[in-house]
Amino acid sequence: MSQAAVVLLSGGLDSTTTLAIAVAEGRRVHALSFAYGQRHDVELVYARAQARRYGAVAHEIVGLESLGRLVAGQSSLIGGSGLEVPKGRDVEHDPGIPSTYVPARNTLFLSYALAWAEVLSAREIWLGVNAYDYSGYPDCRPEYLRAYERMANLGTRAGVEGTAVRLIAPLVNLRKHEIIARGVELDVDYADTVSCYDALVDSDGRPLACGACDSCQLRRTGFRTAKVPDPTRYREQA
Amino acid sequence: MSQAAVVLLSGGLDSTTTLAIAVAEGRRVHALSFAYGQRHDVELVYARAQARRYGAVAHEIVGLESLGRLVAGQSSLIGGSGLEVPKGRDVEHDPGIPSTYVPARNTLFLSYALAWAEVLSAREIWLGVNAYDYSGYPDCRPEYLRAYERMANLGTRAGVEGTAVRLIAPLVNLRKHEIIARGVELDVDYADTVSCYDALVDSDGRPLACGACDSCQLRRTGFRTAKVPDPTRYREQA
Repeated sequence: MSQAAVVLLSGGLDSTTTLAIAVAEGRRVHALSFAYGQRHDVELVYARAQARRYGAVAHEIVGLESLGRLVAGQSSLIGGSGLEVPKGRDVEHDPGIPSTYVPARNTLFLSYALAWAEVLSAREIWLGVNAYDYSGYPDCRPEYLRAYERMANLGTRAGVEGTAVRLIAPLVNLRKHEIIARGVELDVDYADTVSCYDALVDSDGRPLACGACDSCQLRRTGFRTAKVPDPTRYREQA
Repeated sequence: MSQAAVVLLSGGLDSTTTLAIAVAEGRRVHALSFAYGQRHDVELVYARAQARRYGAVAHEIVGLESLGRLVAGQSSLIGGSGLEVPKGRDVEHDPGIPSTYVPARNTLFLSYALAWAEVLSAREIWLGVNAYDYSGYPDCRPEYLRAYERMANLGTRAGVEGTAVRLIAPLVNLRKHEIIARGVELDVDYADTVSCYDALVDSDGRPLACGACDSCQLRRTGFRTAKVPDPTRYREQA
């Protein structure tokens, strides 16, 4: 039987490509998504669609409403925070951590994945973090991932009994255009992914990207550099 | 101004003693509890009472219903799991991890605490884990705590910007009777704590301990060894 894996799936470009790679490598995928009060929760509709498209064995959407409450007013990514998502930031050169940062987000996501992986006897957790074309979040770096893995294997029965869990981050050292090129090879339909931090939804329920937040900038440049037509619907065109 | 700290508070003997120590050491306490479908959720009533008694600045009870769903049928500590809490186990000598183990529980609890600590600019997370008189859970050991701390400081803005968070586990190297002795010095009212994994509630809403689960055994022996009258109400006496 093929190997079981938990895949973190936001419904964005990176995690959908990660899902496609996991499936191409023969994993039995258990997809895991989170509703944490994110502005762009339309991404979850697309996470659901991609999990179905790639034949995930299961897809759980975990409600993290309490995370939104604990970090209230601290992250512009959370709806009702009273903060604006930064637009037109120089994402290539600004080394700072932007206001879209959500405290301990990946740590929390991975912790649910870790619990589920142990229950499923899955030895792999896949995630689409990326240390190059990213927003400057500390919890996307390889050293963080290694430290998480170490902690996870000291803190679980599976780890103690010798069936360690591994974090697999196939995109961690790729540039955005390389991620897109890999996804195109695997026939990923990027029209059905949502990256925009501030996505609106049109009257048909389809997302309209702002084109100016960090995530839109990275995605747009990625398609241009990869010389792949950008299927994203931007608000200015709508 | 006194230093802010997040304190994990289950409402049991260990976490209530930890709360008392944090307050005695002058911390401004933000207490954090979790509803994860545990059988003994009456403990949350006592967590609430202890947070109030010790003047916690805030007390949040985070709903983790989804954890219960992900680990369904795998932990006897979760109500409706179809598993029984083990009774009369030789907790002193059985080295195994019992069925009350909840996958990744402390990792998940600490991850919420980490998010909240960052928002509060708190540099300490206190928790009542104990590496001696405990149930054999891997996520109670000092090496796990050190690994968590390292991961946390690589994965958060606070850590990256040099205001590292520390895990404070004042009970980690104490025996249960030493914990009780320390708590008595600090005037902890152990009648208002719930340790039993399988606590029932009498018609007045007060807990009745089983007296035989790991947690009851450790607590009972602790009071006996400490030569402190045990205020626990056991079912056999009720």
